[in-house]
Amino acid sequence: MTFSISAQDQQSKARTGTLTTDHGPIHTPIFMPVGTAGTVKAVHQRELETDVQAEIILGNTYHLYLRPGLDVLSQAGGLHKFNGWSHPILTDSGGYQVYSLSNTRKIKEEGVTFKSHIDGSTHRFTPEGVMDIQRTIGADIIMAFDECTPYPCEYGYARQSMEMTHRWLDRCIGRFDATEGYYGYQQTLFPIVQGSTYPDLRRQSAEFIASKEREGNAIGGLAVGEPAEEMYKTIELVNEILPVDKPRYLMGVGTPANILEAIALGVDMFDCVMPTRNARHGILFTTEGIMNLKNEKWSRDFSPIDAGLGGYASTFYTKAYLRHLFKAEEILAAQIASLHNLTFYLWLVRQARVHIDAGDYVTWKNEMVERLMRRL
Amino acid sequence: MTFSISAQDQQSKARTGTLTTDHGPIHTPIFMPVGTAGTVKAVHQRELETDVQAEIILGNTYHLYLRPGLDVLSQAGGLHKFNGWSHPILTDSGGYQVYSLSNTRKIKEEGVTFKSHIDGSTHRFTPEGVMDIQRTIGADIIMAFDECTPYPCEYGYARQSMEMTHRWLDRCIGRFDATEGYYGYQQTLFPIVQGSTYPDLRRQSAEFIASKEREGNAIGGLAVGEPAEEMYKTIELVNEILPVDKPRYLMGVGTPANILEAIALGVDMFDCVMPTRNARHGILFTTEGIMNLKNEKWSRDFSPIDAGLGGYASTFYTKAYLRHLFKAEEILAAQIASLHNLTFYLWLVRQARVHIDAGDYVTWKNEMVERLMRRL
Repeated sequence: MTFSISAQDQQSKARTGTLTTDHGPIHTPIFMPVGTAGTVKAVHQRELETDVQAEIILGNTYHLYLRPGLDVLSQAGGLHKFNGWSHPILTDSGGYQVYSLSNTRKIKEEGVTFKSHIDGSTHRFTPEGVMDIQRTIGADIIMAFDECTPYPCEYGYARQSMEMTHRWLDRCIGRFDATEGYYGYQQTLFPIVQGSTYPDLRRQSAEFIASKEREGNAIGGLAVGEPAEEMYKTIELVNEILPVDKPRYLMGVGTPANILEAIALGVDMFDCVMPTRNARHGILFTTEGIMNLKNEKWSRDFSPIDAGLGGYASTFYTKAYLRHLFKAEEILAAQIASLHNLTFYLWLVRQARVHIDAGDYVTWKNEMVERLMRRL
Repeated sequence: MTFSISAQDQQSKARTGTLTTDHGPIHTPIFMPVGTAGTVKAVHQRELETDVQAEIILGNTYHLYLRPGLDVLSQAGGLHKFNGWSHPILTDSGGYQVYSLSNTRKIKEEGVTFKSHIDGSTHRFTPEGVMDIQRTIGADIIMAFDECTPYPCEYGYARQSMEMTHRWLDRCIGRFDATEGYYGYQQTLFPIVQGSTYPDLRRQSAEFIASKEREGNAIGGLAVGEPAEEMYKTIELVNEILPVDKPRYLMGVGTPANILEAIALGVDMFDCVMPTRNARHGILFTTEGIMNLKNEKWSRDFSPIDAGLGGYASTFYTKAYLRHLFKAEEILAAQIASLHNLTFYLWLVRQARVHIDAGDYVTWKNEMVERLMRRL
């Protein structure tokens, strides 16, 4: 995997670049739609490629491990073959999901024991095991097994957790480097910076992660409830340490404003369930601001969902029709809204790239952040 | 609206033809996907047009009247403008849905009083009112307000109900012919033959309906639980009376085998929720037979859903992937299965047309009925 930077903004840390994988190029900054169980909810693969213009999607190790299971994925020839997505895929480590199961999981130095949310069966994830699982899933980018601490988090716990995440990282690297992919293409491992919101821990973690000299690095443990300002400060601090010539991935972020601000701080990759989850609840992100399609006010608005965005979902269907579909609890509501929101998120990062290349990113970003977060 | 017959099969009553509406031509025999609340469930309008190759879809008067309501539909400029479907639309009369609300509706000569399933509010449908409603919805083909009797049905009730349906038809025609469409295109009214499974009543009803000399005629009250043989006998009897030069619409039918048999008996138009409803439950109709995608046996079958059918949903996705989506209760499961089943149904009637035109319809139909109803 190679990463080349095309342009560096002069007023901020924003940059454009290209991450090249065996499944094709990823233009950064990029947003990665989340395909939890091997599907980006309510969106056909053809729509992801053609309408959304996604360049890489996410899979969740925890979900894929439980269902369809490694046996099926292995026989299919990996997740790309299984779901038909021929562009790059990134898998998380399963850590975040496992920690969310707070009542049924036990964390030890060796790894984490947890119960399946599907059938209650007991499983164990270890750093080595999670590398093997992601080898089998066949993601292009594999994430290290980490602990994502909650917010707020006591200093002592945050430090101990970060230190364990670092020890786990060494075990991940050991296993990853001693193994090869099963399907004939290259995979790469991204380590994850932790340390909650404590500057000294974040600095220490970023230095540790940078010292591993992997092909890309991630920032985890943010967007878990802390104020946005605290998140931005942490990103700024961490990005001063993470190498400039490697892609930086901010995990689980966020709103359109979060993404534009983090790009200004030098982040290259994002993922979040927000565009698809909010879509299913009737919340649309548009070029004019945020709309709740369940509101009565849209019932007689026969204008396109978002004429300024363009594309099928946003211009073919009207606000009044989509509002009707939500009230009638029709599946097509989730389909249109998900397709629209993802198209919007990918448009947003494409626009960011255009403005970084043009040299006016900060001016554009400041206008957009205000406009995009308006409640319509 | 005009109807021209292109070919008449020599071994059966099957025929091909073209029904021309102001929203374009409909090639018969045709299957009409059901779009209950202004949406064919889980299928984008673009997919209906391009992948399914639907030529006409249905709307349900009962559902559309309650939600989004006539006010919204009228302001939108009718259902075509509201949902973006620019080809022909047929609306049922609401009668079938109203009678299904058996606990909350009261049938009188004047009309039917019922309570909304959404908010319990009281409404009344009369023959005149239902004509006005369908004028407002703006369907190309409008159905008469009838009573659909259950199966089995006592002779006395069936006769009285049929007689009321005939009196209602005269009121429908009176109102329809005294009014005009709101949106600048022609609408047409189809009357409906009733009479349960009693040959003398069916004959009497078919004669009454034929005497009205409308542009097309429908057969109602079938596929409500009676044996298939009884349904076929009734269709045969009715089609001997309904004019040959007018399209015949068999309401609410049916399985692939039902459709092929009814085509042989001279039916031209069909609608049924089966392809979409069964799809949502994991039941797929394919060129090789019927599959239950929830079965374990498909979990490692990485072949396309239906290579013989062709088209996006059926060849891009595999059986194993679709099975996984059903087990994981993903929305995409309903999307793929609905798109596949509708593509199959429209393929089926296109193939029927090809074989009627080629003169080998009965031979082909007999082979297909056996093959398509196999359980895979």
